[in-house]
Amino acid sequence: MNSREKPKAVVLLSGGLDSLTVLALAIQQGFDCHALSFDYGQRHSAELNAAKVIVKRYALQSSKVIPVGLNSIGGSALTDESIAVPSQPGDGIPVTYVPARNTIFLAFALGWAEVLHAHDIFIGVNAVDYSGYPDCRPEYIQSFQELANLATKAGIEGQRIAIKTPLIDLSKAEIIKIGSELGVDYSTTVSCYSADESGYACGVCESCRLRKEGFVTAGVADPTRYQS
Amino acid sequence: MNSREKPKAVVLLSGGLDSLTVLALAIQQGFDCHALSFDYGQRHSAELNAAKVIVKRYALQSSKVIPVGLNSIGGSALTDESIAVPSQPGDGIPVTYVPARNTIFLAFALGWAEVLHAHDIFIGVNAVDYSGYPDCRPEYIQSFQELANLATKAGIEGQRIAIKTPLIDLSKAEIIKIGSELGVDYSTTVSCYSADESGYACGVCESCRLRKEGFVTAGVADPTRYQS
Repeated sequence: MNSREKPKAVVLLSGGLDSLTVLALAIQQGFDCHALSFDYGQRHSAELNAAKVIVKRYALQSSKVIPVGLNSIGGSALTDESIAVPSQPGDGIPVTYVPARNTIFLAFALGWAEVLHAHDIFIGVNAVDYSGYPDCRPEYIQSFQELANLATKAGIEGQRIAIKTPLIDLSKAEIIKIGSELGVDYSTTVSCYSADESGYACGVCESCRLRKEGFVTAGVADPTRYQS
Repeated sequence: MNSREKPKAVVLLSGGLDSLTVLALAIQQGFDCHALSFDYGQRHSAELNAAKVIVKRYALQSSKVIPVGLNSIGGSALTDESIAVPSQPGDGIPVTYVPARNTIFLAFALGWAEVLHAHDIFIGVNAVDYSGYPDCRPEYIQSFQELANLATKAGIEGQRIAIKTPLIDLSKAEIIKIGSELGVDYSTTVSCYSADESGYACGVCESCRLRKEGFVTAGVADPTRYQS
């Protein structure tokens, strides 16, 4: 089956562990994948560099990096230099939460899906190790899917758009196991909130902690490149 | 009542006739208005120039122009130079429809509202003279409001977010009448799909046609600056 016969899908690719696993799953399911990444004033460019490496490695037909001015909105430790990234989780929704981020990302994915005539959008959200972000919950995703079908020409014309979240109920360890069985090379992915430009991880932020524990629980050797 | 006591609102301000009317209505309703505009690869910068003039004239506390790469998605005569803007409406959804535009704009408005602790977002969509755009319909707006309350920290904490569409059931003539009664100066607004850099309108595109007819039906002198 060549790529012309495969159904098209837009895959949100951050360059992290979760989004690479989602891409590998979407490819396994027979989709012609189009990778969408965002340059949103991240604290470091290591994630986007990882996304570029992944696009090349999987020889994807097309990919886009869309600049979005999330840093001009502010309000998060991930986009605002004046808010420190915490090393320990606190109570409630953490300061690493970026207001409306997934809504913005999915909105762009929806626009591109409409242009491509793709009916499937894959996103690596996770409700288990989700750090308390409201826009990673199943009820949020369900609501976006309903919106997508009202928002678009395709939806009006009766072509259902699906928001696919294959990781939503999985633990980090389960995600790593599935990816490893699909031959995913996690060494290039970056999960760290404070990675350096070369992609080396701090090893102590909440995201690093969740990832480290995931490899240990999965019984998979951790290929992450740490700063020390 | 000074602006510190007023409830905050994010108002989507394109620089067109509808969005200026919405701003005037939101101010009349007692909101402290924060104007949000987008630089999305429009064919001309006249709209954004008009928005800047409006922000200054109404002495708004804050405003933002967010760059969003809609032109990198393509698929519309408004963002893709290779697709011609039609002068007559055709059947179905027209080529001036920008895929997922209102979803993208409302998503950014939601993010900024969350940072500002604003619970109201005003948008000048219109279901009467809406040119057949799917994301101008009441059921779409209702769906986005439901999403907004699932997507955000504010929503989770029980603060309802409202998407306000005061123009949704009004004809262009009714919009112009209401604005005129509020003292709105429409001479600076730009509705034309093909306006020149100084904001002079072509007078023949579908948007110009709807606007012209609106002034005639409203019995209000048309202050639009036409190219000939």
